Amino acid sequence: MLRFALFGAGRAGSIHARNIANHPNAELGYVYDIDTAAAERVVASFGGHLAISQEEVWSSDAIDAVVIASSTDTHVDLLRRAIEAGLPTYCEKPIDKDVERVKRVVAEAEEASLPVFVGFRRRFMPDLQMMHKKIRNGDLGRIETVNIVARDHEPPPLEYAKVSGGFLLDKMIHYFDLVPWFAGEQPSEVFAAGSCLVDPAIGDLGDIDTALVTLRFPSGTLSVIENGRRSVYGVEERIEIFGADGMLQTTPPYDNQVFHYTENGVERSRHVDYAQESFAHAMDAFIHAVEASEPVSPSLRDGLRAQLIAEAANESLRTNKAVKIDYDP
Amino acid sequence: MLRFALFGAGRAGSIHARNIANHPNAELGYVYDIDTAAAERVVASFGGHLAISQEEVWSSDAIDAVVIASSTDTHVDLLRRAIEAGLPTYCEKPIDKDVERVKRVVAEAEEASLPVFVGFRRRFMPDLQMMHKKIRNGDLGRIETVNIVARDHEPPPLEYAKVSGGFLLDKMIHYFDLVPWFAGEQPSEVFAAGSCLVDPAIGDLGDIDTALVTLRFPSGTLSVIENGRRSVYGVEERIEIFGADGMLQTTPPYDNQVFHYTENGVERSRHVDYAQESFAHAMDAFIHAVEASEPVSPSLRDGLRAQLIAEAANESLRTNKAVKIDYDP
Amino acid sequence: MLRFALFGAGRAGSIHARNIANHPNAELGYVYDIDTAAAERVVASFGGHLAISQEEVWSSDAIDAVVIASSTDTHVDLLRRAIEAGLPTYCEKPIDKDVERVKRVVAEAEEASLPVFVGFRRRFMPDLQMMHKKIRNGDLGRIETVNIVARDHEPPPLEYAKVSGGFLLDKMIHYFDLVPWFAGEQPSEVFAAGSCLVDPAIGDLGDIDTALVTLRFPSGTLSVIENGRRSVYGVEERIEIFGADGMLQTTPPYDNQVFHYTENGVERSRHVDYAQESFAHAMDAFIHAVEASEPVSPSLRDGLRAQLIAEAANESLRTNKAVKIDYDP
Amino acid sequence: MLRFALFGAGRAGSIHARNIANHPNAELGYVYDIDTAAAERVVASFGGHLAISQEEVWSSDAIDAVVIASSTDTHVDLLRRAIEAGLPTYCEKPIDKDVERVKRVVAEAEEASLPVFVGFRRRFMPDLQMMHKKIRNGDLGRIETVNIVARDHEPPPLEYAKVSGGFLLDKMIHYFDLVPWFAGEQPSEVFAAGSCLVDPAIGDLGDIDTALVTLRFPSGTLSVIENGRRSVYGVEERIEIFGADGMLQTTPPYDNQVFHYTENGVERSRHVDYAQESFAHAMDAFIHAVEASEPVSPSLRDGLRAQLIAEAANESLRTNKAVKIDYDP
Repeated sequence: MLRFALFGAGRAGSIHARNIANHPNAELGYVYDIDTAAAERVVASFGGHLAISQEEVWSSDAIDAVVIASSTDTHVDLLRRAIEAGLPTYCEKPIDKDVERVKRVVAEAEEASLPVFVGFRRRFMPDLQMMHKKIRNGDLGRIETVNIVARDHEPPPLEYAKVSGGFLLDKMIHYFDLVPWFAGEQPSEVFAAGSCLVDPAIGDLGDIDTALVTLRFPSGTLSVIENGRRSVYGVEERIEIFGADGMLQTTPPYDNQVFHYTENGVERSRHVDYAQESFAHAMDAFIHAVEASEPVSPSLRDGLRAQLIAEAANESLRTNKAVKIDYDP
Repeated sequence: MLRFALFGAGRAGSIHARNIANHPNAELGYVYDIDTAAAERVVASFGGHLAISQEEVWSSDAIDAVVIASSTDTHVDLLRRAIEAGLPTYCEKPIDKDVERVKRVVAEAEEASLPVFVGFRRRFMPDLQMMHKKIRNGDLGRIETVNIVARDHEPPPLEYAKVSGGFLLDKMIHYFDLVPWFAGEQPSEVFAAGSCLVDPAIGDLGDIDTALVTLRFPSGTLSVIENGRRSVYGVEERIEIFGADGMLQTTPPYDNQVFHYTENGVERSRHVDYAQESFAHAMDAFIHAVEASEPVSPSLRDGLRAQLIAEAANESLRTNKAVKIDYDP
Repeated sequence: MLRFALFGAGRAGSIHARNIANHPNAELGYVYDIDTAAAERVVASFGGHLAISQEEVWSSDAIDAVVIASSTDTHVDLLRRAIEAGLPTYCEKPIDKDVERVKRVVAEAEEASLPVFVGFRRRFMPDLQMMHKKIRNGDLGRIETVNIVARDHEPPPLEYAKVSGGFLLDKMIHYFDLVPWFAGEQPSEVFAAGSCLVDPAIGDLGDIDTALVTLRFPSGTLSVIENGRRSVYGVEERIEIFGADGMLQTTPPYDNQVFHYTENGVERSRHVDYAQESFAHAMDAFIHAVEASEPVSPSLRDGLRAQLIAEAANESLRTNKAVKIDYDP
Repeated sequence: MLRFALFGAGRAGSIHARNIANHPNAELGYVYDIDTAAAERVVASFGGHLAISQEEVWSSDAIDAVVIASSTDTHVDLLRRAIEAGLPTYCEKPIDKDVERVKRVVAEAEEASLPVFVGFRRRFMPDLQMMHKKIRNGDLGRIETVNIVARDHEPPPLEYAKVSGGFLLDKMIHYFDLVPWFAGEQPSEVFAAGSCLVDPAIGDLGDIDTALVTLRFPSGTLSVIENGRRSVYGVEERIEIFGADGMLQTTPPYDNQVFHYTENGVERSRHVDYAQESFAHAMDAFIHAVEASEPVSPSLRDGLRAQLIAEAANESLRTNKAVKIDYDP
């Protein structure tokens, strides 16, 4: 039974709390949030002790693992305390907005051989697992293109957009992890095109809400990721991987299984956000790896790699050129 | 080049005229209709000579084949003239409303070894051909059930319903031919349930417009055919054949290939009547068989068999019992 | 918090135990099974006390509700004890193989005004709920046909088939409840056609494994239900309701959301049994009704009605005629 | 009745010949090809006179319109003769590989007010017509992204690739016309990424066979076009247009309408090339415009515009930067 300290009781933190509480091999030990009321709500629903201070958590010897789901600017300090304490950690993405800080903390975690899992949870969706397995099995032959379309249903609150680190770092980073995972190699170059089409207030922050990012891989594989902040017909997340011997494509899940035939044609209901279930699958993978003393994956370094792509994509946005990605430590 | 005499310039006759005109190995010789204006329109569009009388056609020696698409009550007399003239004939279904007359003319045609093709054109739709081939090839294993749903878009004019011979003989006869063709055997028993739900005027004629007919085959295979006279979302024609090793199912064709995603869900357009194209495929099969001196199929006897099923189904409607089908001549 | 006594710790009983344990407003009080080891396994997994005898349960005053999931021949006696104890009861279908016994116990339960819920759980599947709501809302206009295809993935063990009461009473009874629920009226007549195609051993028992049953309703609505015991491509359960103004159709759920495009075409995975989730929805509906002191639905009388249809269908199998259904007490 | 002179009796020329022969208001007058045998085959199948020389055609006064489907390097000279003769012309794309020559001939045609139609036939596919109409009608609100995936079934012969002007000019030019037509504005910038993945011999020519091209429009609309030269599952052509109020998406057409359910899942057949039918629709649009003395669209200038995008895309391939597109004459 793994006892968790949870830092951060916001949206992601609450989901992690529920998944830990429901997991047969895990339970909540401590919950800390700078907003004590939020932490209290999590404790009331899912158990664990309300920590009054971070120190209360770190001084406990009844903790086996840590989840970092607090605001991005607190991640690195918490990671350092976890490294010091030698506690396996599940850290939400992105690691930090400052890529130099990320590089240092990744080096420190690797130096300490601490298993740190970074929250690229889409890798654990059953359908994407199946696609990955088929690709590794050679079913598609050489991978030629990877085409992703991902649209949120509604934009996040503007307050969130302000501190998110920008659209490419906050949202597209999921796919900067996913595409190399499918391709089996890291991209060497990126080109980004972006627009602010959904909400002018996002543009006023200097950010974008609609983007098309092209990746080029050393083998010649090409990939394009379309991301948007709003879709009237519900969330959209489609992945299509095309190779010499075939193609794999996800199909959208609907909120019911009914066709309605009318005088005007045939209607289906709206798409639903099936990526939500990936939180539980990812937590399960983390718990399993820690219990089995296996390496965690995606690792903190995977988090850094995806961020380096996002950094290069941001530079491409500014320069309107393809930008090479430098993975050197 | 096969020169045709066409009897009947109504809806089916006009379609046959166009298909003959467009066929590389066929042309229209004569067109006759009791409604001379209708015959004139066909000649103007698709060629051939306007026959003033039926005798003008039969006395010609420039005719190689006959199409009978006139009203049902004229079929048997025309068939007899065609037999006498030794001319291969494409005859629309049903052969005659009086099954005893049908039996006699089938015997006469067989006695004369005249190739007479009966217009069960659905057999020639490419998708159904493919299904039939897979079944004959054993892909489904033993056939267990055949499930057909067929709904017209709109009911025919009441005048047509009056002379059609009733819903089961006029409409469902297509499937009384199709299901045995798939099953590879003739049904031994039929049960019919019918209602008048679409138009009370049809009920006033003593007819029905909605029916569920169950067939039982000697091997134990079961089949149900649902037919209806009106569907607000367009024509419906679905066939599903289930066997020990798999299932084949047709998918509905839409009038365009576009999905429209809206705030309310996803919309497709209406179904279209893809069975229309089977007229041309059937005519081509007839022409090919005549040119190659091969037996025609479906034959006049196939027409009789389907009608015997329809007769038994009508008896079942009256008696509310399963009725055995007697195929003896 | 509703404390349950559970009779029967087999397949259905275990599912009910889990759903009760997971329900926020319910818990297991006692578990009894003639097979004590089975009851022990349920208690170990989901809580409650292991009852050594039935009397131990009935003499407790710490029970608020009863679940009857034991073998069919024990249902009526257990129902009588529940009536005596005045305990709201969830009873698995069928109530008893002897319809006269069913009639008596239904009368007794109604006399006692005891809420008894009968386990026609499909009514609670979200998609079917949505369809039912749309129909009641008039979206389809007058209902003309209801077409159900339901195939198990694999036949049950022969031992089960021996005591099940026959295919129509065991399996098709679900749809004998469902179709009238959609149609808004009880059928007046039934015709059944059946075959033994899957396993000759089932035929040796005098039973069938493939059936087509036609229902006729007073309004003229027609319905056909196809049921089978084995499907190589996974479970099949499709419902199509056709009315004057449109059609509703369920779509099959697949075990993943991936299309695989290959040289031979496009492949999807197999169907999955989405009806499993209906157990939890049905239990939730029962708990909710008991807590709110609302009438339970489907009631014991609904169970009797469905059984009367099954009885008439069995008579139709024997007589090869349509059989009128007599609902009189 | 429009009498056509056809230059070029290769693949595209033969298709045009058949469509002209089948059109109720058009017929073939002359057919010329440098390969006389090819021209003879077309005349034998579809009528018209075999022209021994080009001069024979231009000196005739029995010609109403011209189709230019000969090799690309002959287009401009033929266009000049057509301008001189004042004959409305249907010209295959691309107009010429040298964009400066294209500019001059476009200016000459516009100066002469000659209707010249350029063969961007996809605009006339019924589905894309419907999508265009809905967009113009405002059904999608502001257009945010246009996402096209188009893959050939098999690469063209290497001989063709050698003279085609390169992948972007030969293949992707169709979409450089289509996307602005949907967007309602011309793109201001293009970025191209390309690889040679299908056939190294194409790479040896300095060409690519797989490309991802990003377009940016003045309004902020973004578009990405993926093109490839080979797809094992059949041709692929999918268009998805996403706007503030909804999305339109084409669905792939299959070579039959049958689902095959097996132990392994559900199979469909391969995609078919539905773009073929657009040849006839485009020719019909040209004939209709000439007869009605309406302006033709897409015009020669549309051909130039698409080519300017292709030129900029080729420059982007070389420079690895986004390239502005200059439409000035």
